[in-house]
Amino acid sequence: MKALVYHGPGQKAWEEKPKPAILKSTDAVVKVFKTTICGTDLHILKGDTPEVTPGRILGHEGVGIVEETGSGVTAFKKGDHVLISCITSCGKCEYCKKGMYSHCEDGGWILGHLIDGTQAEYVRIPHADNSLYRIPEGSDEEALVMLSDILPTGFECGVLNGQVKPGDTVVIVGSGPIGLAALLTVQFYSPAEIIMIDLDDNRLDVARRFGATQTINSAHTDPIAKVMSLTGKKGADTVIEAVGTPATFELCESLVAPGGRIANIGVHGKSVVLHLETLWSQNITITTRLVDTVTTPMLLKTVQSKKLDPQRLITHRFKLSDIVRAYDTFQHADREKALKVILTNE
Amino acid sequence: MKALVYHGPGQKAWEEKPKPAILKSTDAVVKVFKTTICGTDLHILKGDTPEVTPGRILGHEGVGIVEETGSGVTAFKKGDHVLISCITSCGKCEYCKKGMYSHCEDGGWILGHLIDGTQAEYVRIPHADNSLYRIPEGSDEEALVMLSDILPTGFECGVLNGQVKPGDTVVIVGSGPIGLAALLTVQFYSPAEIIMIDLDDNRLDVARRFGATQTINSAHTDPIAKVMSLTGKKGADTVIEAVGTPATFELCESLVAPGGRIANIGVHGKSVVLHLETLWSQNITITTRLVDTVTTPMLLKTVQSKKLDPQRLITHRFKLSDIVRAYDTFQHADREKALKVILTNE
Amino acid sequence: MKALVYHGPGQKAWEEKPKPAILKSTDAVVKVFKTTICGTDLHILKGDTPEVTPGRILGHEGVGIVEETGSGVTAFKKGDHVLISCITSCGKCEYCKKGMYSHCEDGGWILGHLIDGTQAEYVRIPHADNSLYRIPEGSDEEALVMLSDILPTGFECGVLNGQVKPGDTVVIVGSGPIGLAALLTVQFYSPAEIIMIDLDDNRLDVARRFGATQTINSAHTDPIAKVMSLTGKKGADTVIEAVGTPATFELCESLVAPGGRIANIGVHGKSVVLHLETLWSQNITITTRLVDTVTTPMLLKTVQSKKLDPQRLITHRFKLSDIVRAYDTFQHADREKALKVILTNE
Amino acid sequence: MKALVYHGPGQKAWEEKPKPAILKSTDAVVKVFKTTICGTDLHILKGDTPEVTPGRILGHEGVGIVEETGSGVTAFKKGDHVLISCITSCGKCEYCKKGMYSHCEDGGWILGHLIDGTQAEYVRIPHADNSLYRIPEGSDEEALVMLSDILPTGFECGVLNGQVKPGDTVVIVGSGPIGLAALLTVQFYSPAEIIMIDLDDNRLDVARRFGATQTINSAHTDPIAKVMSLTGKKGADTVIEAVGTPATFELCESLVAPGGRIANIGVHGKSVVLHLETLWSQNITITTRLVDTVTTPMLLKTVQSKKLDPQRLITHRFKLSDIVRAYDTFQHADREKALKVILTNE
Repeated sequence: MKALVYHGPGQKAWEEKPKPAILKSTDAVVKVFKTTICGTDLHILKGDTPEVTPGRILGHEGVGIVEETGSGVTAFKKGDHVLISCITSCGKCEYCKKGMYSHCEDGGWILGHLIDGTQAEYVRIPHADNSLYRIPEGSDEEALVMLSDILPTGFECGVLNGQVKPGDTVVIVGSGPIGLAALLTVQFYSPAEIIMIDLDDNRLDVARRFGATQTINSAHTDPIAKVMSLTGKKGADTVIEAVGTPATFELCESLVAPGGRIANIGVHGKSVVLHLETLWSQNITITTRLVDTVTTPMLLKTVQSKKLDPQRLITHRFKLSDIVRAYDTFQHADREKALKVILTNE
Repeated sequence: MKALVYHGPGQKAWEEKPKPAILKSTDAVVKVFKTTICGTDLHILKGDTPEVTPGRILGHEGVGIVEETGSGVTAFKKGDHVLISCITSCGKCEYCKKGMYSHCEDGGWILGHLIDGTQAEYVRIPHADNSLYRIPEGSDEEALVMLSDILPTGFECGVLNGQVKPGDTVVIVGSGPIGLAALLTVQFYSPAEIIMIDLDDNRLDVARRFGATQTINSAHTDPIAKVMSLTGKKGADTVIEAVGTPATFELCESLVAPGGRIANIGVHGKSVVLHLETLWSQNITITTRLVDTVTTPMLLKTVQSKKLDPQRLITHRFKLSDIVRAYDTFQHADREKALKVILTNE
Repeated sequence: MKALVYHGPGQKAWEEKPKPAILKSTDAVVKVFKTTICGTDLHILKGDTPEVTPGRILGHEGVGIVEETGSGVTAFKKGDHVLISCITSCGKCEYCKKGMYSHCEDGGWILGHLIDGTQAEYVRIPHADNSLYRIPEGSDEEALVMLSDILPTGFECGVLNGQVKPGDTVVIVGSGPIGLAALLTVQFYSPAEIIMIDLDDNRLDVARRFGATQTINSAHTDPIAKVMSLTGKKGADTVIEAVGTPATFELCESLVAPGGRIANIGVHGKSVVLHLETLWSQNITITTRLVDTVTTPMLLKTVQSKKLDPQRLITHRFKLSDIVRAYDTFQHADREKALKVILTNE
Repeated sequence: MKALVYHGPGQKAWEEKPKPAILKSTDAVVKVFKTTICGTDLHILKGDTPEVTPGRILGHEGVGIVEETGSGVTAFKKGDHVLISCITSCGKCEYCKKGMYSHCEDGGWILGHLIDGTQAEYVRIPHADNSLYRIPEGSDEEALVMLSDILPTGFECGVLNGQVKPGDTVVIVGSGPIGLAALLTVQFYSPAEIIMIDLDDNRLDVARRFGATQTINSAHTDPIAKVMSLTGKKGADTVIEAVGTPATFELCESLVAPGGRIANIGVHGKSVVLHLETLWSQNITITTRLVDTVTTPMLLKTVQSKKLDPQRLITHRFKLSDIVRAYDTFQHADREKALKVILTNE
């Protein structure tokens, strides 16, 4: 089969690889129908993730059709249409029993990371019963690719950890795909104000179309002054960090109201300064989280009932065999006005 | 009347001051029966709290007898024995309605800070109905002085925010009075292990007598290695910071298990380094809080039912008129093996 | 002034009464601008509420302008536009401190019940600071009359107690004004399905316009069979009882899924049969609640941000002096297709 | 092997049966070391549980040693000492993912009910990875038999659903083994008062030794009057029903305070009368639950740390081969002053 293979920092190729086989009785092999590219894939290609070794097939998102199942798989059979979770879950370790699949003792984020991933014609999925989700008949399967990673990430790490309530004021720092995923799902809880902050006017335009009630381009406007003015000098009930830099995290610290919450989604490469000299008395909560995808069944229901339209995150489409070109588009997201790209295995 | 008056950094005196009078209809004047000294009082005397102006009577803890009430006070009358909360609460602002009395728009921590305090023969208590608590007949009133501040602080900021559950492993960094208050109240929830960390062997001895299952003197033992060894390399479910320095907060970051909580109690004068480059994916929660004293009624019930014995925190007793000597003892807590000192207005 | 006065079962009159005066320092007198009639008022007139004595002015909802305040009122002054809560809250008793204002030891539901109410030109409001809410400038004051009682009742007793989550299936039994208030506010949480059950096709038409995804006229369709068919034989995650009869409550017991919740809003005059012989093992939760109006500030924010449009509940308008005719319309709600009627004191 | 076999109402025998074998790859066969008898077993013998068919081996509790595992079992191997949960959990259905193992689509309570149980020399355990728990070395294995069913039942259905908090007043109606299990585990949360109600003075004596602060023999004392007197006429914060009759459930309704909780544990054979005509406005919560055993890992930690001593529930010991005599003792629990009996497979 063909697959997108990592060959060390800056090196990737669409090339022939052996078709995966069942290794354990709880495995399934899935024929990939559609997949996408994640910001994390770009990090891997930069060499930021040394545990990814040359020869690895990238990708941890997608939908497909079950091709083969191990003898221990009971929930799926050949021919089933499935959503692939970016997180592999054994369902029986201490962490899985707590719903913290991200830290599964025999799983977690391994696809396209520690084992071969979904940017390929076929992929092996360990612990298939707990790591795949049946696609309801009549679904828009392309849209569901957004449920592999980006939407549960925005929802669990940003919205649920941010404990957003009706009438709240929410700030989202970062209007890239992940910030927009938080923006789409935060509306499940009917906050009164959703303020998006970014440096890119195009992304802020998108944010307004997606439901932001206010946008701030922090290149031109002091975001702290603006948020304080919009909130009667109190700050926001929930601030969601969707960038992953020291500066954006410190900005969040300045925007949160007494009693409020900072929900981190960003992948950070450096430590940040936490201003406990002021925050110690402000009754705030800071959370971090690697997505658990424990809300995938809930999100599937919101898509089916049209409370959530994941299609809005998709801007570009390619054949899977054109994946190298798709990477180029996604890497130049600003120039291309790209959010998420869909790759179809035709 | 006589009172302990702040006269600028390093300067205090036990001297004559006018007896307080009712200023607003919701005020009460309370004759102080017993009061104590808080670590915060020492900070004020160091000059760390510039909003405290010379001439201010210090102190924010105590029990007493109502001397006089304004016309709007309905819950108390002259002669009632009352516990004075360190936090003044109006009961009607947005924060009070949320139970966040610490940020009351007409109160919060003001006693011995922005208005005259309890280290005096009499004290004026604004919003008396919401800021005083009736002492049940037959109570050990001295013990209840510990409910003005230290026990709700340890409980709310450390234990409740730390979300401690039966069977959990808890680490408390700092075995001073506030860490010990957390230690006493964390036992309400039956954690399996309570590990205290401090530099002072005497305090760790006290911790063991108070219920710690393990103690670590971090002057001699690497606390990270020890906690990891005690927890099967996972870390603690809840880590309570009860010191207030960058080093102790960073230690907490190294001790928390995936999915765990860091509950800050310490008063911090400087920013700290938050290692998001590792913690971003660890599903942790960090909380800060200025005590709200919203749990005072609950704590009173636990004292009455003998689930909590606040007397254990009291090591020294003085006449109120000997308060300058009492400060000396409390300032040399290590030398004196002092936890909390009681001052009685005889 | 003029007021609607209860004179015993079946007897009421629009007649002259003395204008109310401040009795306690925490009182305010409010000039009523707009008020409405509640189903509870009809119950009182039937004689179901013997604690209401002849001579009582009815009504517990409305908006108005502060006319006079007692010396202890600090949050309001003459001329302020205010929303009157149906629940009086002292803000300092044990129940108020828990947010359970409905059981306030010096308040609760007293307006138009134990003290004179709002169907009058003026009304005295005890504990004004905690029982009135400032109306933001530029608000549609008429719409806010729905926030005195019906919307917080549907929201607190039905939606919050029902713990509705995104993607859930919700059944509301009863499509009268209170069921419709639950229907409007349950959409804050983005359930996937909202199934309304009633006997009146007109009300079910309204429900569909207000956002119900399915309606069942239980006069013609077996609601149990239909709900089981819609839910894959599981039943609903949350079932809201908005009628108040033994039959409708028993229906709820048959509709709830394992692990689900029955949230009672209905005012019951008789006991009901609880089928513990089947429900004991079904992991369900049943809640009851007299509205606390603790969510009024949250609801005000949702109205201001246009997440909630209370106007949709208003079908008829009268002058306050025409209140007897308005009662007639409201009493024949089916014939008149009436939901809520507004009475304006011109 | 030998086993206790049900032969229809009133009929049971200790007799030869084939040793169980692995049927599915996720099964384990466990050599029973110790087991016990449950009140539910007596119900089955009375014929109250028609789904139990003649020929069934009874019993759903026990500890043992793994004898054989299917190819899909990864967490256990031959020779492991294990605790058998009364609830079988597949770990992958919708209910298991929510922690509601009691309603597992391929499990739930099936042992000694729908498949052969533990009152035998060997037992087959389906979904072994999720339905067995490793026994820590050095444990008192006999004591852990109490963690198969009775302690998680008292804890989950009574204490957790009852949301008990420090300082609360708790009433437990029924001082049999299950009420006593609730009594032991409710102390994890440090309630101020625990009032036990029963008709048997011996059981109430046991309750006092186990930590009850008050006991009421309702044969001689009016329990409503007594509880109201003990609670300042408010009633209890949490009332736990541990009997399972209409009368005891109605008693709970009379004992609960406004804002309080009724947590049902009792297995009910008949419907009960729910007094909504008074309770509709009392802000109460009623819960039901079949034990999920989702807290077994937590309970194991509390036993290891000596916060919980399950031995206190064991009053009698027999050889497994003497099980018919053990049933006789357990059936005459009053006469024998029996709580739980242990059967050892020697």
